[in-house]
Amino acid sequence: MVAVLPPWVVLDPLLAQWLREDIGRGDRTTSALFPPTAPPMAAHWIAKADGVVAGLDLAARVFQMLDPQSHSQKHCNDGDPCPAGTVVSEFTATPAALLMGERVALNLVMRLSGIATATAAYVAQLADLPTRFVDTRKTTPGLRILEKYASQVGGATNHRMGLDDAVMLKDNHIAAAGGIGNAIAQVRAAMPYPLNIEVETTNPAEIEEAIAHHADIIMLDNMPPAQMRDAVTRIRAANPRIQIEASGNITLATIRTVAETGVDFISSSAPVTRSPWLDISMRWGRPT
Amino acid sequence: MVAVLPPWVVLDPLLAQWLREDIGRGDRTTSALFPPTAPPMAAHWIAKADGVVAGLDLAARVFQMLDPQSHSQKHCNDGDPCPAGTVVSEFTATPAALLMGERVALNLVMRLSGIATATAAYVAQLADLPTRFVDTRKTTPGLRILEKYASQVGGATNHRMGLDDAVMLKDNHIAAAGGIGNAIAQVRAAMPYPLNIEVETTNPAEIEEAIAHHADIIMLDNMPPAQMRDAVTRIRAANPRIQIEASGNITLATIRTVAETGVDFISSSAPVTRSPWLDISMRWGRPT
Amino acid sequence: MVAVLPPWVVLDPLLAQWLREDIGRGDRTTSALFPPTAPPMAAHWIAKADGVVAGLDLAARVFQMLDPQSHSQKHCNDGDPCPAGTVVSEFTATPAALLMGERVALNLVMRLSGIATATAAYVAQLADLPTRFVDTRKTTPGLRILEKYASQVGGATNHRMGLDDAVMLKDNHIAAAGGIGNAIAQVRAAMPYPLNIEVETTNPAEIEEAIAHHADIIMLDNMPPAQMRDAVTRIRAANPRIQIEASGNITLATIRTVAETGVDFISSSAPVTRSPWLDISMRWGRPT
Amino acid sequence: MVAVLPPWVVLDPLLAQWLREDIGRGDRTTSALFPPTAPPMAAHWIAKADGVVAGLDLAARVFQMLDPQSHSQKHCNDGDPCPAGTVVSEFTATPAALLMGERVALNLVMRLSGIATATAAYVAQLADLPTRFVDTRKTTPGLRILEKYASQVGGATNHRMGLDDAVMLKDNHIAAAGGIGNAIAQVRAAMPYPLNIEVETTNPAEIEEAIAHHADIIMLDNMPPAQMRDAVTRIRAANPRIQIEASGNITLATIRTVAETGVDFISSSAPVTRSPWLDISMRWGRPT
Amino acid sequence: MVAVLPPWVVLDPLLAQWLREDIGRGDRTTSALFPPTAPPMAAHWIAKADGVVAGLDLAARVFQMLDPQSHSQKHCNDGDPCPAGTVVSEFTATPAALLMGERVALNLVMRLSGIATATAAYVAQLADLPTRFVDTRKTTPGLRILEKYASQVGGATNHRMGLDDAVMLKDNHIAAAGGIGNAIAQVRAAMPYPLNIEVETTNPAEIEEAIAHHADIIMLDNMPPAQMRDAVTRIRAANPRIQIEASGNITLATIRTVAETGVDFISSSAPVTRSPWLDISMRWGRPT
Amino acid sequence: MVAVLPPWVVLDPLLAQWLREDIGRGDRTTSALFPPTAPPMAAHWIAKADGVVAGLDLAARVFQMLDPQSHSQKHCNDGDPCPAGTVVSEFTATPAALLMGERVALNLVMRLSGIATATAAYVAQLADLPTRFVDTRKTTPGLRILEKYASQVGGATNHRMGLDDAVMLKDNHIAAAGGIGNAIAQVRAAMPYPLNIEVETTNPAEIEEAIAHHADIIMLDNMPPAQMRDAVTRIRAANPRIQIEASGNITLATIRTVAETGVDFISSSAPVTRSPWLDISMRWGRPT
Repeated sequence: MVAVLPPWVVLDPLLAQWLREDIGRGDRTTSALFPPTAPPMAAHWIAKADGVVAGLDLAARVFQMLDPQSHSQKHCNDGDPCPAGTVVSEFTATPAALLMGERVALNLVMRLSGIATATAAYVAQLADLPTRFVDTRKTTPGLRILEKYASQVGGATNHRMGLDDAVMLKDNHIAAAGGIGNAIAQVRAAMPYPLNIEVETTNPAEIEEAIAHHADIIMLDNMPPAQMRDAVTRIRAANPRIQIEASGNITLATIRTVAETGVDFISSSAPVTRSPWLDISMRWGRPT
Repeated sequence: MVAVLPPWVVLDPLLAQWLREDIGRGDRTTSALFPPTAPPMAAHWIAKADGVVAGLDLAARVFQMLDPQSHSQKHCNDGDPCPAGTVVSEFTATPAALLMGERVALNLVMRLSGIATATAAYVAQLADLPTRFVDTRKTTPGLRILEKYASQVGGATNHRMGLDDAVMLKDNHIAAAGGIGNAIAQVRAAMPYPLNIEVETTNPAEIEEAIAHHADIIMLDNMPPAQMRDAVTRIRAANPRIQIEASGNITLATIRTVAETGVDFISSSAPVTRSPWLDISMRWGRPT
Repeated sequence: MVAVLPPWVVLDPLLAQWLREDIGRGDRTTSALFPPTAPPMAAHWIAKADGVVAGLDLAARVFQMLDPQSHSQKHCNDGDPCPAGTVVSEFTATPAALLMGERVALNLVMRLSGIATATAAYVAQLADLPTRFVDTRKTTPGLRILEKYASQVGGATNHRMGLDDAVMLKDNHIAAAGGIGNAIAQVRAAMPYPLNIEVETTNPAEIEEAIAHHADIIMLDNMPPAQMRDAVTRIRAANPRIQIEASGNITLATIRTVAETGVDFISSSAPVTRSPWLDISMRWGRPT
Repeated sequence: MVAVLPPWVVLDPLLAQWLREDIGRGDRTTSALFPPTAPPMAAHWIAKADGVVAGLDLAARVFQMLDPQSHSQKHCNDGDPCPAGTVVSEFTATPAALLMGERVALNLVMRLSGIATATAAYVAQLADLPTRFVDTRKTTPGLRILEKYASQVGGATNHRMGLDDAVMLKDNHIAAAGGIGNAIAQVRAAMPYPLNIEVETTNPAEIEEAIAHHADIIMLDNMPPAQMRDAVTRIRAANPRIQIEASGNITLATIRTVAETGVDFISSSAPVTRSPWLDISMRWGRPT
Repeated sequence: MVAVLPPWVVLDPLLAQWLREDIGRGDRTTSALFPPTAPPMAAHWIAKADGVVAGLDLAARVFQMLDPQSHSQKHCNDGDPCPAGTVVSEFTATPAALLMGERVALNLVMRLSGIATATAAYVAQLADLPTRFVDTRKTTPGLRILEKYASQVGGATNHRMGLDDAVMLKDNHIAAAGGIGNAIAQVRAAMPYPLNIEVETTNPAEIEEAIAHHADIIMLDNMPPAQMRDAVTRIRAANPRIQIEASGNITLATIRTVAETGVDFISSSAPVTRSPWLDISMRWGRPT
Repeated sequence: MVAVLPPWVVLDPLLAQWLREDIGRGDRTTSALFPPTAPPMAAHWIAKADGVVAGLDLAARVFQMLDPQSHSQKHCNDGDPCPAGTVVSEFTATPAALLMGERVALNLVMRLSGIATATAAYVAQLADLPTRFVDTRKTTPGLRILEKYASQVGGATNHRMGLDDAVMLKDNHIAAAGGIGNAIAQVRAAMPYPLNIEVETTNPAEIEEAIAHHADIIMLDNMPPAQMRDAVTRIRAANPRIQIEASGNITLATIRTVAETGVDFISSSAPVTRSPWLDISMRWGRPT
């Protein structure tokens, strides 16, 4: 599977906003030293740590916004594992464009690559299992689409993208509605029909209620593995079409044990909320 | 010193954009269960790990965008160290507002608090020294102002905010201009006069050139402590008004040694690029 | 079920854009005759034809954008059937606000009410049947959220809101992928996991393939009732969890026959693409 | 006369907004099946009912926003009458661009063509008469410019485009000012001088007052034909430069009778508020 | 006549954009010294030269964007002549709001007051004559609406506001169309019918052609007074409803002579393109 | 030194906004007479007064926004002195693009050239002196970047660009903080460290305090030359690194006397607030 970015008509306003954030009223250093008409130069990006690169096309687009004649040549693709020292891409543009866009392009790709790298470590734990690793809505404000893209690049499956493309019933929703059955009925009456309803459960009683009222997805929240295994057995027996998600403080150390309970999905925000950026640096000239 | 946010006329467009990112075409879950006219409820936020909280006023503003009658009561201020379990703030708003805004508000505050917490650890190493800890332009695209704010909350001093409020001469700028002297002359002729020029140096020859051409700030990049100490001595002797910044792979383990070389500032992107988010959760009702 | 609008943080930019579209550089007539400080006046809206009103809160918001002190009193709620002559709402605001906002507010409510009214006629045909009426992505550019809201107000269930919250496989997608099985596999690997996949089918072979590859929803496109009934029987037997949608040139005259085939959903764009606006006029003073 | 669209610098923000509305966070179906680098394909649009097409250049622009290499070949021009079955245009673009842009492009052109078609029917009734058919400010919020363009394409003349390019005095304006004379004097003192003033009248006394105070345009609102003919005679005698507009519940059945009273213009919102969209479908490959 | 600003829904985006332009990433001076919670202070504005003030409500709105509790008390109204030393308005707001908004508010009001003052000098020359003074489309990009407002405040009548609310036929338009008659016919067929057509003329032949083809307005461009007087006589004789505008290098010294030729309007861009800003300064405390 | 514009990603939104301001809903004159497909034509711009041209690349960009195939050939560069009659640039574009963009492009270049011309007159007074002429924050709202660019084109050095790139302590700041020392300490603790602090002074006591607390820049506000000379002597003796700025009602007649006091910088808003636009007109065809 190849992760695919939304079209530029969706992403360009973000990239332009981010360039304006850094450039402000003009790059005082570059403007004084490099006329916009200077001949193009080459630069290359080198990964300074092992990792999975994500977002190289975004970097190329950033440079094109500053120099429409600029072009790039990727040496690896989003999702490829890159050992430290790998030249991940070359960019050719005016020096002014390369220098003005450098920080925005690197910040973006380093952040996304950090997520992809961390995600890939979780996904690797599940390589021989049918369970899939999924992300969450804990993403940096303004970067939802791209952080979810990075998550895909790292091998994860995306969970819902926002509050509008799936329903998630938690404690307080259920309490407000007077039980899981009422909550599902009210929500199903009001939501677009192709959407699915996920119910968060923490104990067998809630699981039974979710099964009884035809939840599409049941989340097992913070359960010990043995309880989780029982839950999976019970749900499969009741309705094999219900998807089962495990969630709650899952780490690299515990994910495999959780997966072996037979759940379909394991969600974690850790690759987004706890990952360091992948260090990448820009150097002048073509790689040797 | 108290860190101060820019006025809402600057920040509101960002907060609104981020709410729209999460809400999309509507919160399917909340809308079906909580009418906009439901009576207000209380919720409180609890830190789930030790840390320094940053951004609580932003959270309150997010909820006000969804419910203009909402209000909040902070139990601690941005910058206060909060042990795990601390109730950091209470929010009172319609349940629809609390649920729709929860994720955006938490994502933002958790991210900023993570930066503030990590920054505070670096700053603590320098508590009894005159050296100040500064951030960099490695920030998440779109969050520059707020991540720099979090950095201040953690006790750091901000470095330049963008490409336009200070000049930074690096290798390639200097090469293009034909030496530090030429570069400084060209840039100073073109830039707003109250701005300062910082020159990156890696060896004694470059330092001499920067001194000779009246750099305002000299950055010592990736030097061993002994070499750095010599550089400080030399620069102080030549011109006590020049500010000296150390940079390059400085860690919690090495920062004190670097500071003891006598530099004025030590810059590091680590609190932004390598910090986990501070975990905070929202619970219903008033704290007990 | 009560249809719920997204929060104002989502809708305000649209309403403001529409006011600016009509006002341009200023209302030449009103500005010259009514100072902004003139005392508030009352106006009421009267339905001039039988219909179902939709969007009254939007009208109130439009007037508030022009006069923050303005207020309104609804005499009927969105979704209520209103015979011609019904006073649907009163608005109190400065005369300048009432006159500047009148056309935008009426245009919006008349359009949405037209959709709600036409939708209600389709829905009425299914009143005693379990089949639900759903809308489509044929909506006026820029009004998707609100036309879908009007559709809900009229009693319909929304179909997907955009290209991102459900998957719809049509001929050309299937051809490109080399069959329904391949298409489903490729899409499922790349999409957010809570999303559903709908497959358009026109004959029994396609239906079998969709069943075999676990489509979540099967659309029966433009089939005669007898063939549709057979399809429903076959799908129910194979997998009772698959949702079945009928589509294609369904009219008020034929919808009941289609529903009696046992499909879960019948989709039609007619209430959006073929409905007249509901005529409403604004009069001065309080209704008598 | 050929209707002319405003330049793209005016329209592009609208088209981009509409694409973003439909695409949301990405087209889940297309992205998984068609890489952005897939070779271009051809598609053609076929009118499925008799009508007047409007907006084909907008459709081409929509596809270019998704694929800058895309191109199109129109088989008929905006304003041409097209019988059902006509191939109206061909588009060549990547399959991803064609599929992502299809719905937005078609929704727009179908809506505009519906207006043009309905307008042309009214205009046809006046083909041999000097009276011109004009539109109104009853337009879909956000589409004013384009719906007015469609109206022109159908053969109508545009009435004022907004509240700022002409003055229209109605009952309440006149009452507030204390009579037509006062109202005209106040408005004329405050408005840009090249603008015209239109006065709505419902009886001979108002017409006399409008004549006496040099209204530029007199609207005869909802008058029976005989009264309207008398009004025209009176106004022509008093001042042949005053333009006369008839308005109010004019239908295809009555428009000719109204025109024969000698008025210069007949305005109706019906082609905008009561017209069905013209059905057009997209098919793959070149037309045969 | 009182000049009236468009509603805030039109102007707020401009004011907010201008505040963001000056504040950038935050007011470094004010933020450090005045907490947002400091008690409100008073400030007053004093005119430092004789002039006509324009835009005081805009200044109050600027301060309200920074402090919603701020209020103001005008000591004179837009359009009042103010001798040097006049206190034109008081503002009460937090010190942070007053200091952050000061420059934007003053820049705007000083610029607009400069225009109003210069305009008033031209208008004064015509005080006892029926001729009216009008502005042009030579306005600062982005300030069209407000500079035209200032022009009204100074006593001028606005000319057209943009390219869309009136037609102006110049040499090249006429040449392209093959004569005035053709140009008028083509334009009238395509434009909204309530619009007027103005024809620029430089000699008697062109004037005759403009009369013959029913121009609504005839501009006499750069003619000596005697020729202008003949032109007025000729046009009045031919058609008393045609409006006559004089244009071209009219100064304070020549305007009265031009007006005495009997033209209806004299247009000049000088108050916009050649006026100094009216100097106004802000002082702390209430005026004494 | 060559003044450099920020990249188009920063400026394009402004230029597009300004085109939309003038074009509104469409250029009624041009659209009717020149089809968008008409062959390109040439036009040239002629300076009608002696001056320094500024902004020609902006004009070319404006025309390209309307006709991507358009091109231009500059006959002089920004900053060149141009006697009246100089052809400053040629533009080749469709007639529709030339006519629709003409006013916006000219308004912008005439305004900026007016500033550059006035600035150059001040700068010329200092030609043989080391003192540099600087601008202020008194700029037209929305045009800060471009008016500061024009100022540079005229030979000035820019002062700070906004409230965020330098600190300026005035009376009220100092009073609020309890003296210059406190104010500097508070501000320095909170601001980005590369920024400079300027202190406004009006008497020797304030100057001493500013020296004592290490102000980076001292402004001598409205002092007579003798007092200013003493201040310069005192500051140089105390600390030769402090930059000295003179400000306050400096005119062409007095600037040289002020410069001879030995200050580093003289600031004045006069070229922005008191300069007439440089008159430039567009003619058809190539220059002869």
